Amino acid sequence: MSTLLTGNAAIGQSGGPTAVINQSLVGVVEGLRAGLCAAGFVGQILGMRHGVKGLTKAVSTPTGIGDFFDLGLVSPERLERLARTPSAALGSTRDKPDQAYCERILGACRKNNIRYFFYIGGNDSSDTCRIVSEMATRSGWDMRCFHVPKTVDNDLMESDHTPGYPSAARFVAQACAADSLDNRSLPGIKINVVMGRHAGFLTAASALARKHDEQGVPVLDRGFPDAAQLIYVPEVAFDLDGFAADVDAVYSKLGRCQIVVSEGIQDKNGKAIGAGLIKSGQVDSHGNVQLSGSGALGDQLSDFLKERLTPAGGKPPRVRADTFGYVQRAWPDPSCVDSWEAREVGRFAARLALSGAESGSVAIVRTGSGSSILAGRGGDAYSSACARIEFAAVAAKTRHMPPEFLKGTNDVSAAFVRYAAPLIGTMPVFECL
Amino acid sequence: MSTLLTGNAAIGQSGGPTAVINQSLVGVVEGLRAGLCAAGFVGQILGMRHGVKGLTKAVSTPTGIGDFFDLGLVSPERLERLARTPSAALGSTRDKPDQAYCERILGACRKNNIRYFFYIGGNDSSDTCRIVSEMATRSGWDMRCFHVPKTVDNDLMESDHTPGYPSAARFVAQACAADSLDNRSLPGIKINVVMGRHAGFLTAASALARKHDEQGVPVLDRGFPDAAQLIYVPEVAFDLDGFAADVDAVYSKLGRCQIVVSEGIQDKNGKAIGAGLIKSGQVDSHGNVQLSGSGALGDQLSDFLKERLTPAGGKPPRVRADTFGYVQRAWPDPSCVDSWEAREVGRFAARLALSGAESGSVAIVRTGSGSSILAGRGGDAYSSACARIEFAAVAAKTRHMPPEFLKGTNDVSAAFVRYAAPLIGTMPVFECL
Repeated sequence: MSTLLTGNAAIGQSGGPTAVINQSLVGVVEGLRAGLCAAGFVGQILGMRHGVKGLTKAVSTPTGIGDFFDLGLVSPERLERLARTPSAALGSTRDKPDQAYCERILGACRKNNIRYFFYIGGNDSSDTCRIVSEMATRSGWDMRCFHVPKTVDNDLMESDHTPGYPSAARFVAQACAADSLDNRSLPGIKINVVMGRHAGFLTAASALARKHDEQGVPVLDRGFPDAAQLIYVPEVAFDLDGFAADVDAVYSKLGRCQIVVSEGIQDKNGKAIGAGLIKSGQVDSHGNVQLSGSGALGDQLSDFLKERLTPAGGKPPRVRADTFGYVQRAWPDPSCVDSWEAREVGRFAARLALSGAESGSVAIVRTGSGSSILAGRGGDAYSSACARIEFAAVAAKTRHMPPEFLKGTNDVSAAFVRYAAPLIGTMPVFECL
Repeated sequence: MSTLLTGNAAIGQSGGPTAVINQSLVGVVEGLRAGLCAAGFVGQILGMRHGVKGLTKAVSTPTGIGDFFDLGLVSPERLERLARTPSAALGSTRDKPDQAYCERILGACRKNNIRYFFYIGGNDSSDTCRIVSEMATRSGWDMRCFHVPKTVDNDLMESDHTPGYPSAARFVAQACAADSLDNRSLPGIKINVVMGRHAGFLTAASALARKHDEQGVPVLDRGFPDAAQLIYVPEVAFDLDGFAADVDAVYSKLGRCQIVVSEGIQDKNGKAIGAGLIKSGQVDSHGNVQLSGSGALGDQLSDFLKERLTPAGGKPPRVRADTFGYVQRAWPDPSCVDSWEAREVGRFAARLALSGAESGSVAIVRTGSGSSILAGRGGDAYSSACARIEFAAVAAKTRHMPPEFLKGTNDVSAAFVRYAAPLIGTMPVFECL
């Protein structure tokens, strides 16, 4: 399979946008230009409008590229600005193609002479790549499909972490740090609801809001956390009574309590705590209940605590809930590591195509632990590399927080902090009296 | 009244924290040290714990400062870090003192030999200053009281704007810009609920999310807004039918719609739209209904639109709501103008004390329009100065958006953009395909 194919390349973006998904888009374009375009194998670089949704409707005209974006014509200066722009510049989609839909995708590829198919997205997108790739092989249409990883949920198998996660984690850590100072100033019980669907990685990043020393290095294991005193992730069964007892214990001791909760927390039977609460109960095309874009889970937990923690004859404690919402995935101050790696996974996918590699996905492998962030000069510098993996390893699978990242039922471990701290970039250093 | 008094100084922080309120605290401390402390008039600089709440409970011990923070002993390096830390470092309070409470405040001042009283806060805090000051005069206790302005709501009379507002406005503008790209990527109807109580200034800052040119300069009046297509502030009566019609018009045209709504929007009878919706209806000690710390208003408007805009026999549009919450007032990336001015109002208050001025408040006056931000080199650079004003001009009063800042029932004017753009600092420049 080392023959290079001659034809067009198409690139699409899918699923929830991130702060750095356009870095990956630009990485693929750069890689193609320098490689397959320069060598004359790829003619046009077609940008799908809203992913496969646009692709299946798009037709190239004889004189131009029709309904596609012509990515081959964008100047390097504009590409560079695009790379630094959050959210999906091509437009995204939540369509999850079934067999019939994938037939239409393949039909569009044939019609537009697409021989290289790049799809930037999460586990559903890698599954789309897998189906289309298998279908193309069976039907005798020579085409290489590459899945480029992206998700703030950090829930892709095989990857140390996924592009998009470090920047969202950076937002969550900074937001919880600032909010913790707010809660120290006007003490009460504060609930913050964080994205991540069924994986707790993004919620866990709130632990990085805890004390940093004067060099901005997280301080580990020094008694009671000064921020995010309670952290609840979907990997641990959520129990309302236990929750109330946890909050009561912290609030009684400190007179305040900052709680960070995943939108996807579930009870011991796997039933989402949020799902039962959301009135309109919208379900997307993946069959998932709407978890984001509503304050319902936070408000319900807030009402529950006010009721449960009101002393007999007394007044309820001050309880507030914030749901961080869409800004956490698109905040325009990305982690440097994330910007760099997101660009690199795009370039790497183009390089795979240039090397004649078979269809597949890209994973990030950590090659330097980054322990220097916590240990000072004695530790390893952080570094990473890209690797090609088979679709089967990642498609439609969900990675969860491993047990060693958890601590009891309401916290994350020092191992998680060591894992995540090198990814998010410098944290502001705060001073307290 | 030009005699300088000899005794201690006390400083307190009150109301909702901001990203730069500690700049003001440090400004007062620096000013006192360089002036009244150096000249021997002020002995101790006492930091009240949680404002007047702590003051009324605090007692200096013969050998130390008892329940106060000893601000005179904090090193310049630590003060500098403190200034850059968001939220109220001394702790804040929502207590709104009545006559009897003010008697206790005055009692605490006498007991601790406080001759200079600095209170950093909003219009309620300036009223506290006024009452305490009048009471001190009547009772023959020589004491100068200075109110140092602070509020993200920007609702203090006499000031061009208030410290805290530019940084919160910066957050809102950046959040709406990023969120607008998100909504462009996965199109739908998106509601963002913004703080500000009964003033619309902070919500209006969403207009700064609109297109900026390659130098980061807001582009005015170029047809349909590319972000924050609909902006609702409390100064304009909110009508649900009109709201639905506005959204329908934008959504029909663009296939997406970003709406920004003040938490304090009210109907034509002055009834808060939010108030009726909030289940637990908490009321603070100022008699105000809880507007923040809940997603109720956004979710209710979201449900309303889903119901109203569902075509007969069709499925509801994708509607999402985010409530920006407490991070908007404490986000650790303040506007440079704001950091500088917040420090300056603190220093100015200390300088008033040093000059033997009578009790009063501080206002920010704009001395250079900042039109250069929009007009390029041809315009005026932005500049501002501090001025002493009487308590009567600011205490317990609320400033609202003037009519020239409004445009119709659902937008703000170019005059508002010219007013606010010089305050928030550089916006990231985004690129679209």
